[in-house]
Amino acid sequence: MTDVRDESSGSRELVEELAGRLCNWDRWDRHDGVGALNLITPAKRLEGSAAVRSGEAFSLGFELRPDLPQPANSGRQNPLHLMTEVPGDFPDGWVGPVSADDWLSMAVHAATHWDALSHFFHRGQMYGGISAAEVTATHGAKRNDIVPVARRLVTRGVLADVARHRGLDVLPPAHGIGADELREVLDAQGVEVRPGDALLVRTGLLGATKRAGAWTEFAQCGPNLPRNPGIAVDALPLLHELGVCAIACDNWAVEQTTGGPPDFPVHELALVYMGMILGENFELDALADACAAAGQWDFLFAGQPLPLRGGVGGPVNPMAVL
Amino acid sequence: MTDVRDESSGSRELVEELAGRLCNWDRWDRHDGVGALNLITPAKRLEGSAAVRSGEAFSLGFELRPDLPQPANSGRQNPLHLMTEVPGDFPDGWVGPVSADDWLSMAVHAATHWDALSHFFHRGQMYGGISAAEVTATHGAKRNDIVPVARRLVTRGVLADVARHRGLDVLPPAHGIGADELREVLDAQGVEVRPGDALLVRTGLLGATKRAGAWTEFAQCGPNLPRNPGIAVDALPLLHELGVCAIACDNWAVEQTTGGPPDFPVHELALVYMGMILGENFELDALADACAAAGQWDFLFAGQPLPLRGGVGGPVNPMAVL
Amino acid sequence: MTDVRDESSGSRELVEELAGRLCNWDRWDRHDGVGALNLITPAKRLEGSAAVRSGEAFSLGFELRPDLPQPANSGRQNPLHLMTEVPGDFPDGWVGPVSADDWLSMAVHAATHWDALSHFFHRGQMYGGISAAEVTATHGAKRNDIVPVARRLVTRGVLADVARHRGLDVLPPAHGIGADELREVLDAQGVEVRPGDALLVRTGLLGATKRAGAWTEFAQCGPNLPRNPGIAVDALPLLHELGVCAIACDNWAVEQTTGGPPDFPVHELALVYMGMILGENFELDALADACAAAGQWDFLFAGQPLPLRGGVGGPVNPMAVL
Amino acid sequence: MTDVRDESSGSRELVEELAGRLCNWDRWDRHDGVGALNLITPAKRLEGSAAVRSGEAFSLGFELRPDLPQPANSGRQNPLHLMTEVPGDFPDGWVGPVSADDWLSMAVHAATHWDALSHFFHRGQMYGGISAAEVTATHGAKRNDIVPVARRLVTRGVLADVARHRGLDVLPPAHGIGADELREVLDAQGVEVRPGDALLVRTGLLGATKRAGAWTEFAQCGPNLPRNPGIAVDALPLLHELGVCAIACDNWAVEQTTGGPPDFPVHELALVYMGMILGENFELDALADACAAAGQWDFLFAGQPLPLRGGVGGPVNPMAVL
Repeated sequence: MTDVRDESSGSRELVEELAGRLCNWDRWDRHDGVGALNLITPAKRLEGSAAVRSGEAFSLGFELRPDLPQPANSGRQNPLHLMTEVPGDFPDGWVGPVSADDWLSMAVHAATHWDALSHFFHRGQMYGGISAAEVTATHGAKRNDIVPVARRLVTRGVLADVARHRGLDVLPPAHGIGADELREVLDAQGVEVRPGDALLVRTGLLGATKRAGAWTEFAQCGPNLPRNPGIAVDALPLLHELGVCAIACDNWAVEQTTGGPPDFPVHELALVYMGMILGENFELDALADACAAAGQWDFLFAGQPLPLRGGVGGPVNPMAVL
Repeated sequence: MTDVRDESSGSRELVEELAGRLCNWDRWDRHDGVGALNLITPAKRLEGSAAVRSGEAFSLGFELRPDLPQPANSGRQNPLHLMTEVPGDFPDGWVGPVSADDWLSMAVHAATHWDALSHFFHRGQMYGGISAAEVTATHGAKRNDIVPVARRLVTRGVLADVARHRGLDVLPPAHGIGADELREVLDAQGVEVRPGDALLVRTGLLGATKRAGAWTEFAQCGPNLPRNPGIAVDALPLLHELGVCAIACDNWAVEQTTGGPPDFPVHELALVYMGMILGENFELDALADACAAAGQWDFLFAGQPLPLRGGVGGPVNPMAVL
Repeated sequence: MTDVRDESSGSRELVEELAGRLCNWDRWDRHDGVGALNLITPAKRLEGSAAVRSGEAFSLGFELRPDLPQPANSGRQNPLHLMTEVPGDFPDGWVGPVSADDWLSMAVHAATHWDALSHFFHRGQMYGGISAAEVTATHGAKRNDIVPVARRLVTRGVLADVARHRGLDVLPPAHGIGADELREVLDAQGVEVRPGDALLVRTGLLGATKRAGAWTEFAQCGPNLPRNPGIAVDALPLLHELGVCAIACDNWAVEQTTGGPPDFPVHELALVYMGMILGENFELDALADACAAAGQWDFLFAGQPLPLRGGVGGPVNPMAVL
Repeated sequence: MTDVRDESSGSRELVEELAGRLCNWDRWDRHDGVGALNLITPAKRLEGSAAVRSGEAFSLGFELRPDLPQPANSGRQNPLHLMTEVPGDFPDGWVGPVSADDWLSMAVHAATHWDALSHFFHRGQMYGGISAAEVTATHGAKRNDIVPVARRLVTRGVLADVARHRGLDVLPPAHGIGADELREVLDAQGVEVRPGDALLVRTGLLGATKRAGAWTEFAQCGPNLPRNPGIAVDALPLLHELGVCAIACDNWAVEQTTGGPPDFPVHELALVYMGMILGENFELDALADACAAAGQWDFLFAGQPLPLRGGVGGPVNPMAVL
């Protein structure tokens, strides 16, 4: 497969149609705030830990630093780290304890994070049919915040390395990964995706951007979206069928973005209707190399974010144990 | 054992003596920034995943919220969560995507966190004999920051439930948990601590404080330390011998604090000499109940913090999978 | 006059009636964002500078500090000051320049500030009949922000020292200063208020609170308002008639608050209809002593806030030159 | 005068020599934290208010906004404005008061500000011979913070419009304004500088940068300084002789910067020895136009910053009343 699909696969008609077909609101308690993470059961976590073979671990979180990965004026401030105490503060001759303390300020969605089910809305509602009015500047997300996700997200993980499968460093700009391509990659890798799995999909974009230092292409910093490879709308029925509970990519928005004004059909369908959370800015290159070397594409995935009350997202340092 | 040890076990002479005896600087590469986490090998993680029996998971992170757990004027700001976009911002008749975005600001050591090896100093040095001058307001920790910890910390975990063993809701104020008591608890629980384990020690303090709402007793908010039960200095040789790589408690400072002006002998010895990181404000009650019910005191422990560049600590939502 | 008026003077009927009577929307360009500050002309500033007699200056801004004046959990974070560089960061033997740099984070309305005309709304509108929808989490105040206030606010100021006139350290809790009392104080002081003046009204509350250290009584930190002395609704027609362009007090909300759930009739009338900005947490004691000693109650008033784009308020260090 | 002086006039020998000659430590109480602002007396403020002729006012503060004036990665975060409450948060049918509240976070030295006497050090000392160790990450500036400046800075102001005098939009890159040129401009303008005056010197740089949108040239954002026109070292003896108490420019650092690694001789001499504060990022173009039109170069100057406890600088919206 060598074609590039750089047109959005998400016509408004298709979104409407899929919104009905993929809707999980009545599949579980629509008020529990976890959506498809309901597929993670204790037995599922046993399956996840059984996937550990070498014990090698890969941390998938982008280092929290003030200059990356968001370009200047993206509207999402990179993490700012300040010191509130340093050892030099203690005078000469001081005999008591000497310590250092620090402070962190960041846009939640700037670095590696999960979007909570309150991050996106459609027709005035978020997941479960809950009113968008439950998310306010005063209280953040009163419903569907990231906290229940933080309490649950350890499961079996699977990596689909689309870039490697195509023999590319990075997928072409704006390329959409659809159901056929995803299935082809999983088949070629010989790995089965099962209900409750977290699926990591590698486009190669974050690593390639890092090597090139070309961050203005990576994230939105103007009126138009970047042209990022990512998940296409027509992959969603497959993810639904497979029972994927959470999907993450090494790009800015999980989904394919094709330039032009903001349009996020995968966000709308996955978050609002499927209750499937999205993980962004994941670093997947080292994990992918190890998976390829071992011929092992599943692992234990500890992807629990910080339990941020009211958070429409949550910072996370996801860990894959091979 | 019913006695209360509410005098500090950490005389300055003892600290000096143990500093030499427990020093790990030459045991591993003293410049790798991970200290005793060197004991976590891939094989160790296999051992950790083999400890999973039911697959039940417990998130040990205190919810990030603006009012707790630090009392007012503690000098450590609780997490502040602000919204940078809410659905109500979109005008009536808007047809494009509707989303919400947010922002987090916090003292790193306010909520559940790990102290990095750059958090404490002794005689002008931190772990590895590295100069305290490597931690500055301009750059944070240029050495021994939390990043390498973030890349590694998944291992087998063990819980020692000291409060439950003594039949108490919470250990007495200022009580120091020494080697004998710790060994007694582990023996009674029938669990073995092995090299590379993360050890969680339950005092009952965080849960009891929550139920009572008495947070001014929990953390330091004036010139004197609170009187918290915690680890005594004389437990450190045992932890060294057992090969514990990280220790965490359901209290403010891991170690016993006995009132009076700041004095942190366990911080000095564990962080500076042993290279053993300290986890604070861990929520252990639910995990402890499940351990007691199952008679199982070991588990897979995914305790990876955020990879905060320059961080002398790192926020974390630790996960124990039973 | 010795009676205490601790019932709100602001029935909803009265608010409705005054909203019509005091409305300035058609008096000036309703889109210029300055409202009654239109009364400040160059000639008015000449009048202000002519009021300077001794040249003594009084800074009325509460010191920006992390613990005051807002009590814990007020929802308005006091100013947090952090260092981003300190001289101790520079190594021994350093020969280049040595400097220090810093950082500030604060709730705009925590310390001494002006409320912008976008701080309050009534029937879905703010001053000028502009829709409340112009204030969003994404952009702050797109209309009526504090910037035009920052460009203009230097004028003649007048102090009405109500507490001193009544021979009190501080006015009684919840006392409302009405038109009669205000006129009586001004008459007794022998000072005339003229169109374009900024009026400072002293209740004694901030100073008394400081001396007593009783900050939980000063500002709202629960579901109910504090019981603060302040401006009563029936003072507004007088202020309108006199042409006061801005009013400030040494209390938390300018207006009288009588306990119970939030109710801010003076905010609604002054900000939304009169276009008269409100200044809160002003320190007036030293100025008042000097005014009394000199028998001079008018002065040059330099009350320009920071020009914060999108700000629904602006931090300020107001200066009165006697 | 058409020559360009784009070599630094501040040899280390000259700095040493002037440090002794211009030192004001023993001229006033060296512990009062105000340095040359001691020259502002009540009589001086009378002189300032007497300078008001038309009453036109000019606000000299750069708008607080997230994208300017610091370029990305300058290390000084531009002001970030967030909302903590917006009117859209209030549900349909709400009958109580509706308000908006906000929040500000910024590098103090990012926008228009004064450097406090604790901003720079020489030979381990700041103004008054006070040890640099008095400025720590824990407490900020325990001595010489911006608070006493905030309590005092209203005086007579004088503008020296160097760019206009030379018939230029903006002075040449790296040009140093020395004593001769400054005297020539003041003479040509026919204005006398007198003890206690604040002197504003216009280079044209901020306005020209704004028009060109070329901010990366304006402030330091890499290892080398920008090449900014500004005050040369050899202007300092003249400022000392004239009794200038505070000097501000429409550039990034007041002083001439000639590229190359950081070197701030004017900061060292003015702040550490003369006790003369420096004002940066002042907007002077509109004021300059009015001064030229009126042929009036002096005015009342209300330049009081926020009283930031521990601040080594203070944000300010300076106001000139012509």
